[in-house]
Amino acid sequence: MNNRNEYLETKAQAARAAAKKLAFTPTAVKNQALLNIAEALTKRQDEILTANRQDYAEGEAGGMGAAMLDRLMLNPARLQGMAADVKTVAALTDPVGEVFDMRTLPNGLQIGKKRVPLGVVGAIYESRPNVTVDISSLCLKSGNAVILRGGSETIRSNLALVAVVVDACAGAGLPAGAAQFVDNPDRALVGQLLRMREYVDLIIPRGGADLIRFVAENARMPVITGGIGVCHTYVDKGADIRKAAAIIYNAKVQRPTVCNALDTVLIHSSIASDGLPQIASELGKAGVELHCDERSRSLLTGVPSLKVTPATEQDWGKEFLALIAAIKVVDSLDEAIEHIDKYGSGHSEAIVTENYTAAQRFLNEVDAAAVYVNASTRFTDGGQFGLGAEVGISTQKMHARGPMGLKELTSYKWIIYGNGQVRE
Amino acid sequence: MNNRNEYLETKAQAARAAAKKLAFTPTAVKNQALLNIAEALTKRQDEILTANRQDYAEGEAGGMGAAMLDRLMLNPARLQGMAADVKTVAALTDPVGEVFDMRTLPNGLQIGKKRVPLGVVGAIYESRPNVTVDISSLCLKSGNAVILRGGSETIRSNLALVAVVVDACAGAGLPAGAAQFVDNPDRALVGQLLRMREYVDLIIPRGGADLIRFVAENARMPVITGGIGVCHTYVDKGADIRKAAAIIYNAKVQRPTVCNALDTVLIHSSIASDGLPQIASELGKAGVELHCDERSRSLLTGVPSLKVTPATEQDWGKEFLALIAAIKVVDSLDEAIEHIDKYGSGHSEAIVTENYTAAQRFLNEVDAAAVYVNASTRFTDGGQFGLGAEVGISTQKMHARGPMGLKELTSYKWIIYGNGQVRE
Repeated sequence: MNNRNEYLETKAQAARAAAKKLAFTPTAVKNQALLNIAEALTKRQDEILTANRQDYAEGEAGGMGAAMLDRLMLNPARLQGMAADVKTVAALTDPVGEVFDMRTLPNGLQIGKKRVPLGVVGAIYESRPNVTVDISSLCLKSGNAVILRGGSETIRSNLALVAVVVDACAGAGLPAGAAQFVDNPDRALVGQLLRMREYVDLIIPRGGADLIRFVAENARMPVITGGIGVCHTYVDKGADIRKAAAIIYNAKVQRPTVCNALDTVLIHSSIASDGLPQIASELGKAGVELHCDERSRSLLTGVPSLKVTPATEQDWGKEFLALIAAIKVVDSLDEAIEHIDKYGSGHSEAIVTENYTAAQRFLNEVDAAAVYVNASTRFTDGGQFGLGAEVGISTQKMHARGPMGLKELTSYKWIIYGNGQVRE
Repeated sequence: MNNRNEYLETKAQAARAAAKKLAFTPTAVKNQALLNIAEALTKRQDEILTANRQDYAEGEAGGMGAAMLDRLMLNPARLQGMAADVKTVAALTDPVGEVFDMRTLPNGLQIGKKRVPLGVVGAIYESRPNVTVDISSLCLKSGNAVILRGGSETIRSNLALVAVVVDACAGAGLPAGAAQFVDNPDRALVGQLLRMREYVDLIIPRGGADLIRFVAENARMPVITGGIGVCHTYVDKGADIRKAAAIIYNAKVQRPTVCNALDTVLIHSSIASDGLPQIASELGKAGVELHCDERSRSLLTGVPSLKVTPATEQDWGKEFLALIAAIKVVDSLDEAIEHIDKYGSGHSEAIVTENYTAAQRFLNEVDAAAVYVNASTRFTDGGQFGLGAEVGISTQKMHARGPMGLKELTSYKWIIYGNGQVRE
C-alpha cells in the first residue's frame, strides 16, 4: 500500500511541479511539442500498430464486443487522423494569457480578465487509445499538466502512444513530468487518484456509464461528466423526407459505436405514413434493427427486409452503441420535445424541418449540449466544431458544455491596474 | 422525517417547475420584478428594520461577536445600497439568449453558442441578510429559480426580505415558486438539500470556513466555493510609501469583517525601515493590532502607541476578519510571491510598486481570483467590478472565478443550423 501510494504520489507531485512551469511556457515551445507528437505518430507507426494489434488480439480472444473492438482499433488512417488533429491543435491560438473584458471603471481602475491554465488535469478513460493523444495535446497546449489513466484493455497501445508524447515533450523542452501515465494496472489507484484534491484540479472520465458514475461519486475535485449520448432526431411535419432519411442514416450508420450516434427517431404522425417507410428502408440497407412503437410498426409491415421488433419502455432513453434504432410516432412538436426532455441525456438532439418556427422552438426549448436543425448529430465533436480535438463532451452545465477544447481547459484571473485607488 | 422530506421536496419541485418557465420569461418581466424589489426595500423599510433589530438584539444578548453583528446589521443606508444594487442589476443586459461565437464551418453548418440559465440555484448562507436580496435578484434576472437557506441568526430579517422578493415577483408576473426560502430552522434540511441533485443544479455556500467545507464535502451537485480571503498586500522596493500606506489602511480598516479585507502586509527589506513605521502608524490610528515577524517588530519599536505582538506561524494564512494585521519583511519579489503561494487563499492579492516589471510579474505569477497593482483589495466585489451585485466570490478555477454576477449564473448550448449536412 505504501509503495502504491508513493508511486502515484510521485507522479502527481511531478505533474503539479510541471504545471507551475507549464503555465509560463512560451506558445512556440508548446506548439513544437505538438508538432513532434504529430510527426512521431507517422514515424513510429509500426511500433504503435504492433502494440495495438496485441491489445486487439487479446480483446478478441477475451470475447470483447464489436463496439469495444472498434473503439480500441488503430490503423494507419486513424493514426493519420490523430496526427492531423494534433497539428490542428498546434495551429490554434494559444488561449493562455488572453486578456479580455478589459475596461476602465469610473474611479480609474483598469479591470479585466486574463486567461490561465487550470493546473493539473486528470483523465480516466477506457478503450479508445486516441484519447491519450487528444487529451495530452489539448492539455499541454493549454498549459496544463496531465495525468492519464487508460483502460487495461489498451495498455500496450497507450504505452506506445505515451512514449511518443513524452519523447515529443522532451524534444521540445517542455517541463519534465508534464504528461504522466499511470501504467500500474491496480484498480485501487483510480480511487486514490480521485482523492488527490491537492494535486489534481479537474478530473475527466471518458468511458461507459459505470465509469462515469464511479468517478462522479468518488472524486473530491471537480469532475466534468458527459459522453453518454441518448440522441434523438425528430422529423417534423412538412420535413423534406430525402433530407431526413439521409441525416438519420448518417447519424445512425456512419459510426454507430460513439456517443453522438442516433438512438431514437421521432416522427410526426402527419408525415409518418409517407416518410417512415423511406427512412426505414434506408436504415434497413445497413442492417439496422428497428425497435418500433405500435404506430410506427404498423407503418412498416409492408417494407421488405427490415428487422423490426416491438419497442419496450427500456428502448427509450437507451444508448445503443450498435446498429439499432428506436422509432416512435408523435402527434406534435410539443410531444417530441417532451419525449426528449424525459429520455434524452442532454447530449445531441436534432430536428428535421422546413418550418421556421418549429426550428426556432426546437433550438430554444430542447435542453441539450448541442441542438441541430437539419443536420446529423454525428457532428458533435471537437474536431468537427473547429476545436482541433476534444478532451470530452460535457453534458453538464457548469464550466463547459458540449465538446471541450483548449479554452474549456482554462480559467481566468481578474487583473486590476490601479494608481492608488482605495474604496470609499 | 416524512414531513420534513415533503416540506423541502415541495419547495424544490416548485423551484424546478418555475425554472422551466423562467428560462423563457421576457427580460422586461424579470426587470419589473427587480424594480419592484428595489422599490419595496424603501417602502417597507420599517418592517425590515424592525425584524432586523430583533435579530440584532438576540445576537447581542447571545454574545455574538462584533464582526458577526456588523454583518447582520441593517440600517436605512444599507437598505438603500441594496436597492441601488438591485436597480443596477435590473439595468444590466440580460445574459439569457445571447448568441455568441457564431460562425460558418467549411461544410456550411452555422454553429454558435446560445446562453441559457443554469436552472435551480441553491444558496446556503450565514449572517448577512443582504445576501437574500443579492442572490435573488441575480438569479431571477439570469432566469434561474433560487432556493435560499439563510442562517437562524438572521431568520426574521430574511423572512421580511423574502416577503419583499416574493411579493415583487408576483406583482411582476414571474412564475410562482421562482424564489423559495427554507424557513424551517431544522439543520438536517441542509443535508437533505445538498442531496437533491435532481432539483438543484448548483449550490453556493456563503459563510465561514466550516459551512463551506461542510457544503463542499456533502453536496452531490456542483458547488462553487469561495469567500475565504487571506489577502496580502506586498510593498515592493521603490514603492510610493504614501500610496502604500493609504492602500493598506483602506484594505485593512474600511470594513475589516469581510473577505477582501487585508490580512498580511509583506514589505521589501530595502524599504521597510523607512516605510514600515509610516504604514504602521497609519494603521495604529485605527487601533489595528499588528502581529509582526522579528524584523518588522524591530523596525517598529520606536513608533508610539502601536499594539505590536510577535507573529506566530498561525498568523500567516489566517483570515482575521478584525482590526488585526500580520506583517513580514521579505527580501525579494520572489519571496513575496512564494509566501502568497503558500499562505494565500486565492482570493485577492495586491502589490504596491512603481516598477513596471515587478507589477507585470506579480499580475502574472500570483495565482488568485483578483490580482491588483496599486489598489486596495477591498474592490473585489461584484458591485465594484460592475456586475451589479454578486452571488459570491469564487476562489476556485472551474466555471467562474472571483465575483459571480449574471453571466456566471448561466451556461450555454451549442446551436447548429444545417441544410442537410451529414458527416463523411
